[in-house]
Amino acid sequence: MGTVAVGVVGIGAMGMGIARNLLARGYAVHVRDIRAEAEAEARAAGAVVHPSPVSLARECGVVMTVVVNDAQTEEVVFGADGVAETLARDAVLVLNSTLSPAFVAAAAERLTARGLAMLDAPISGGPARARDGTMSMMIAGPAAARDRAGAVLADAAAKRFVIGERPGDGARMKLVNNMLAGVNLAAGCEAMALALRLGLDPQIAHDVINASSGGSWMFADRMPRVLAGDYATKAAVHILAKDLGLLLETAAENDFPAPIAAVARQAYLATMALGHGDEDDSAVIKSYAQPAGIALP
Amino acid sequence: MGTVAVGVVGIGAMGMGIARNLLARGYAVHVRDIRAEAEAEARAAGAVVHPSPVSLARECGVVMTVVVNDAQTEEVVFGADGVAETLARDAVLVLNSTLSPAFVAAAAERLTARGLAMLDAPISGGPARARDGTMSMMIAGPAAARDRAGAVLADAAAKRFVIGERPGDGARMKLVNNMLAGVNLAAGCEAMALALRLGLDPQIAHDVINASSGGSWMFADRMPRVLAGDYATKAAVHILAKDLGLLLETAAENDFPAPIAAVARQAYLATMALGHGDEDDSAVIKSYAQPAGIALP
Repeated sequence: MGTVAVGVVGIGAMGMGIARNLLARGYAVHVRDIRAEAEAEARAAGAVVHPSPVSLARECGVVMTVVVNDAQTEEVVFGADGVAETLARDAVLVLNSTLSPAFVAAAAERLTARGLAMLDAPISGGPARARDGTMSMMIAGPAAARDRAGAVLADAAAKRFVIGERPGDGARMKLVNNMLAGVNLAAGCEAMALALRLGLDPQIAHDVINASSGGSWMFADRMPRVLAGDYATKAAVHILAKDLGLLLETAAENDFPAPIAAVARQAYLATMALGHGDEDDSAVIKSYAQPAGIALP
Repeated sequence: MGTVAVGVVGIGAMGMGIARNLLARGYAVHVRDIRAEAEAEARAAGAVVHPSPVSLARECGVVMTVVVNDAQTEEVVFGADGVAETLARDAVLVLNSTLSPAFVAAAAERLTARGLAMLDAPISGGPARARDGTMSMMIAGPAAARDRAGAVLADAAAKRFVIGERPGDGARMKLVNNMLAGVNLAAGCEAMALALRLGLDPQIAHDVINASSGGSWMFADRMPRVLAGDYATKAAVHILAKDLGLLLETAAENDFPAPIAAVARQAYLATMALGHGDEDDSAVIKSYAQPAGIALP
């Protein structure tokens, strides 16, 4: 383990978790971020800090980008100081952000035209699981690139799904999963607010639903935060709002109506309109409770 | 066990399961149904068949009604040949159907005025779990009635939740749970149809979602039927359509907007409009696939 130098571009909560995990497993880890405090933290943990993606890519056999969106990925990969300028022909670029499938597919074409290898590999599970290497990853791309990056990805993400050969399918799979996460959470908030309105005990309602056919991963994970009245941000409201927006655009490009996803997105936007967009996404229940005058726990 | 005579009014799939389970546990079980073939099956299993609820109630310490809806419950409890005519003052009537909370609350008042005891106790889990006594039950009503029926209910339903003292709260809890079951299934169908439209492998999509944040009880339970192309009815489309309708009426009576539930209901109605209302509720995916020309497995 740790025989390849790995670059991590974008060391927010997820990128930092990945970097620390790979450092702990003996990899030489190179990082780049625009925030000095993130760079300082990574340096203290043992990473080599670079002034630009182009400088980082020169040193690395695998480069993982963990930035926020399409625009940032465009800049750190294809910009004047981008990874593509110096990435070796036998290296692999791994896109770990949640991106639009169309952007990912186009990026793969542009890189292939330059003789460079790319994997579409969105991740899931949160910072704690990134930090201990147990996060999940949905991987799409050519088998040769999957093989070359295989050992690093196995150390970064214990739970890996190979979606297929076609770049963009990782992004598609991630959006479809996140659509359900977004709908199931918003519906859970709708149900819990209604339970309160109907005079039911929220703890009992929580226990019944968790043990019954109404249960979901998101309900089980998020609803205890509502019961505790603790909206400290673990995943902000605006993130699933963005993912639902991306999903709906992708559905629209494919002439596919997704009415439940479209309505669920409104609950996130309503929460943001009420000023709670930076709170934990369990705060979506406020978009139901606040207008209706329902007291939350 | 088995020291009280138990009546089961309505021996469809759930009622028959309850009757058979209680017979196996040594209870004297009395049944009533309007269908001769159901009566014959119960008689062969060892139950005493009655020509009317009024005749049945005379013999039983606990009477469970497992009929379809408010109207049937009204008839078998308060009709000319209804349970209320002969139920003993120390017996307990247990309403196991999924009913409107307003109807249940009113029924409790009417029975209390006649000195009769009632529990609001909707059930969940399907016929197989009714048959082996492992179904779940959401119980609301006075502690005295809960105590008196306690042993029978413990033998009928291994998983019992006491929702509270107030009759109607069992019905409310059941509707809130079923709302989420209905939304999570319809959203799962929307997501799986979109995955197919996007060219993803449905088995991989299923595996990823089941292991990720998009998972839900309904997705895990129903989606294998879609993958197998097997829509043999275990729970028909029109049942969750009815439950979502009841839930939305209850929400409306409480001035509570439930937009996600309202839109999800349309998927069930669209499935019925396409002629699939009597198929298994996993057939809701046809309301997405058929108009879009998506080939299902």
